[in-house]
Amino acid sequence: MRFLLTNDDGIYAKGLAALHQELSKDADCLVVAPEVEQSAVGHAITLFRPLMVREVKRNGSFLGYAVAGTPADCVKLGIRELSEQPVDLVVSGINMGGNVGINVIYSGTVSAATEGAIMGVPSLALSLDTHRDPDFTFAAKFARKMAAFVMQNRFLNCLALNVNIPALPEEEIKGVVVARQGKTRLMENFDKRTDPRDNLYYWLAGETQLSADEGTDADACALNRGFITVMPLHYDLTCYKAMDELEGKVRDHLKL
Amino acid sequence: MRFLLTNDDGIYAKGLAALHQELSKDADCLVVAPEVEQSAVGHAITLFRPLMVREVKRNGSFLGYAVAGTPADCVKLGIRELSEQPVDLVVSGINMGGNVGINVIYSGTVSAATEGAIMGVPSLALSLDTHRDPDFTFAAKFARKMAAFVMQNRFLNCLALNVNIPALPEEEIKGVVVARQGKTRLMENFDKRTDPRDNLYYWLAGETQLSADEGTDADACALNRGFITVMPLHYDLTCYKAMDELEGKVRDHLKL
Repeated sequence: MRFLLTNDDGIYAKGLAALHQELSKDADCLVVAPEVEQSAVGHAITLFRPLMVREVKRNGSFLGYAVAGTPADCVKLGIRELSEQPVDLVVSGINMGGNVGINVIYSGTVSAATEGAIMGVPSLALSLDTHRDPDFTFAAKFARKMAAFVMQNRFLNCLALNVNIPALPEEEIKGVVVARQGKTRLMENFDKRTDPRDNLYYWLAGETQLSADEGTDADACALNRGFITVMPLHYDLTCYKAMDELEGKVRDHLKL
Repeated sequence: MRFLLTNDDGIYAKGLAALHQELSKDADCLVVAPEVEQSAVGHAITLFRPLMVREVKRNGSFLGYAVAGTPADCVKLGIRELSEQPVDLVVSGINMGGNVGINVIYSGTVSAATEGAIMGVPSLALSLDTHRDPDFTFAAKFARKMAAFVMQNRFLNCLALNVNIPALPEEEIKGVVVARQGKTRLMENFDKRTDPRDNLYYWLAGETQLSADEGTDADACALNRGFITVMPLHYDLTCYKAMDELEGKVRDHLKL
């Protein structure tokens, strides 16, 4: 089996190294990951400059390629060009920090998995829910189980899964739940400053606000209660529930 | 009324100027747009560097702000910080080139509208379906109608709409249809080169492939037949139709 490994924290991130070590027990793993951190790049792709590609070794042996681009670039380039054999599974992560709620749309980690699914390859995005002193040991072991699970279930063939893992000792993890995207989001504010030449600039700041979904199985809440959450991803942005009423309004009120 | 105008082609793009000219007939328009072109940045936001902001005038009078960031950054900053009054409508565009099918997920134009909706402001993304010699006259007139339509229908209050306009003379436009996202997508390939110092790089190339949806009302097909398409957008990436089967498989086959 050939797995393509990527992330948005950059090719030297510890989460990716932990993933590579575990998944290499079952599959031939090719790493194609961003040269530098790409957090919050969402589903950006690179059209107007070339993608520089550099071969990377670890402990003297070939590991993969660093790409001066986004996670979605890495998946496209990895599947279409850099992997000399067909890719059976795309695995993105392990991200430092959870990817839940509306924040999912900003996530480079998740977008890499979505890109894999668009290209017809089953895909996993994996995130460990902490921004401090991450221990990826259990998350990497669970990633190996998830990869085997996807490989054994053909139903998952064209699907991307967004997996979030609590940063808890293994014995405190309560189980695995399938969760829908909750409404947790960044409530942004901006920190206004001027540079030494009196030019205006802002830093995006703010806090993630847990939604009122608490108590349901929406992703952030289940994760906070100690469950690993698995969310099936799609890339159809049509709001179907608005279609009928919108059609009526357009017919009645919108003339050329 | 206060409209916030943005785009992904950059603050000096002709499509934005045409939009500003028309919409200013009905509303007080504030432009907050990227300093430079941001096509295909998707829903990227800027976390790790500051957003430089520069006041921009046109013909000697205040137009708005150029932001060294993405379209989603512009919407966040415009609504939260730069607009001194509440924003009633976000309008993104007019993009040069259609935004239909799976390509929608890469679109900075569309992501700006989605960001507006996330922040609770009704939003429009507008694209003219041509990459060559665009004439934005009719598209801008139609943008004004769309803006009035959204302002008059409270049902649309928290919704973003992705509007694509054929690049045809006004009399050849057949009507307005509500369309779902089709499967049209970029079939990527890569052009491999080396730089003068023998470093490897790739250009993302490829062609947009119309899906087999032709004949349905999916966006690209309706657009190609001469209709303006209006697609309601959501930002819930949960694949609900996969939930039940996935829950069963997880319960039966995935042990901690």
